[in-house]
Amino acid sequence: MSTTPAVPGSTALAPGIAARLKRTADGLLPAIAQQYDTGEVLMLGWMDDEALHRTLTTGRCTYWSRSRQEYWVKGDTSGHVQRVTSVALDCDGDTLLVKVDQSGAACHTGDRTCFDADVLPLA
Amino acid sequence: MSTTPAVPGSTALAPGIAARLKRTADGLLPAIAQQYDTGEVLMLGWMDDEALHRTLTTGRCTYWSRSRQEYWVKGDTSGHVQRVTSVALDCDGDTLLVKVDQSGAACHTGDRTCFDADVLPLA
Repeated sequence: MSTTPAVPGSTALAPGIAARLKRTADGLLPAIAQQYDTGEVLMLGWMDDEALHRTLTTGRCTYWSRSRQEYWVKGDTSGHVQRVTSVALDCDGDTLLVKVDQSGAACHTGDRTCFDADVLPLA
Repeated sequence: MSTTPAVPGSTALAPGIAARLKRTADGLLPAIAQQYDTGEVLMLGWMDDEALHRTLTTGRCTYWSRSRQEYWVKGDTSGHVQRVTSVALDCDGDTLLVKVDQSGAACHTGDRTCFDADVLPLA
């Protein structure tokens, strides 16, 4: 288990990409996972440089768990893997959009997405 | 200009909603803006309790600007407004998905979305 995100520059992430990232104080970027064909927003996870490197090079979405302080490959426990079809960095360099092909439910509750259960009332 | 996000409980956000929010150390939640009909992910902004309250009650997306340390109503300067169609809180209570009808470009660069310009290479 890792106990802290990788220090920028300590991973094999391409330096030309790493130089464009604007990270939180914790060294992380929010990563939006979207189903590539239907457009469903599935979940939001967090990536450091190493998680992004693994996501780009393995074809499987890899996140940094802030609660467990370790890397996790989505689906390794649940079987509900996310196969990566594209990754984009936003105009500010501080957010990632990862298009994936999601197997089964993205949410640990069993819902298809993490946004299915709690729609807030508009005034 | 505000110089800090509103303290939780100091705004008119419904207490039943506020109690479910898990905020960053800065008192914020990431908010994903998605075009309600096409499914395009347009941008990611940040909301505190007050920005969420305004978003829910005015029908216009309101964010907290971390760089300017003030609230901003999307489109007030550019004319590229986001009319809110729904707001959902995720299973962990730490991310918002705001479906909107975006007028014109969502990105300050003139691109339709903030994720159009920088697609990263997959290995």
